[in-house]
Amino acid sequence: MKIHHVGVAVEDLDAAIEMYTRSFGAELTHRASNEELNAAFLQAGEAEVELLEPRRADTPVGKFLARRGPGLHHIAVAVPDIERAISDAKAEGLEMIDQEPRIGLHGTRIAFIHPKSVGGVLTELVEA
Amino acid sequence: MKIHHVGVAVEDLDAAIEMYTRSFGAELTHRASNEELNAAFLQAGEAEVELLEPRRADTPVGKFLARRGPGLHHIAVAVPDIERAISDAKAEGLEMIDQEPRIGLHGTRIAFIHPKSVGGVLTELVEA
Repeated sequence: MKIHHVGVAVEDLDAAIEMYTRSFGAELTHRASNEELNAAFLQAGEAEVELLEPRRADTPVGKFLARRGPGLHHIAVAVPDIERAISDAKAEGLEMIDQEPRIGLHGTRIAFIHPKSVGGVLTELVEA
Repeated sequence: MKIHHVGVAVEDLDAAIEMYTRSFGAELTHRASNEELNAAFLQAGEAEVELLEPRRADTPVGKFLARRGPGLHHIAVAVPDIERAISDAKAEGLEMIDQEPRIGLHGTRIAFIHPKSVGGVLTELVEA
């Protein structure tokens, strides 16, 4: 098991980048956006912190912010083979949010496991 | 900036260890307890996942579980010098929960920063 990144829901992406780089000496490596959110990636050892700012309220991260406020959102685990990891997770009885791999913000293949199967932790599998 | 560990609040420590080792191939490295909680540490690359089971309801993790349910609890950042890190954090205007270092579950010196200063993320500084 290897942590690929930790996802953090933020209300203001630029303010969050400023805080992490100034207060923790984090290095901004890149940004990415899709229709649902704007993201920024900070190097944190061999893992990353992924800052997630929703672009609309009716998105998963937008709803998370409305319900729980900003804070820790998910943890991502690196896996060598995403199809195999999904198949293994299903065999263990874990409920997948994504039944098939999809392309994540890093351009790699990902799939989310439902938090109710992982002790309340929204867990992302990342092929890396 | 380097992630030292990610803390996860759990209701049943043994069940959580079983789930992480079986479903994610995580390796249990050690356990520790204090008056407030029982903990287990799983290796996850160069970082760790720290599973936290409260021993009483009137503890920080016990109150977290009652309020939000099990899930992601905090993130810990490795720092080379804890006094310097606390001093720097205060100079940046961050509110410390621990004004002075104290000994954490790893036997190392730690201090927590209030989540309201870190975008809702309870953040631990670990001297490592």
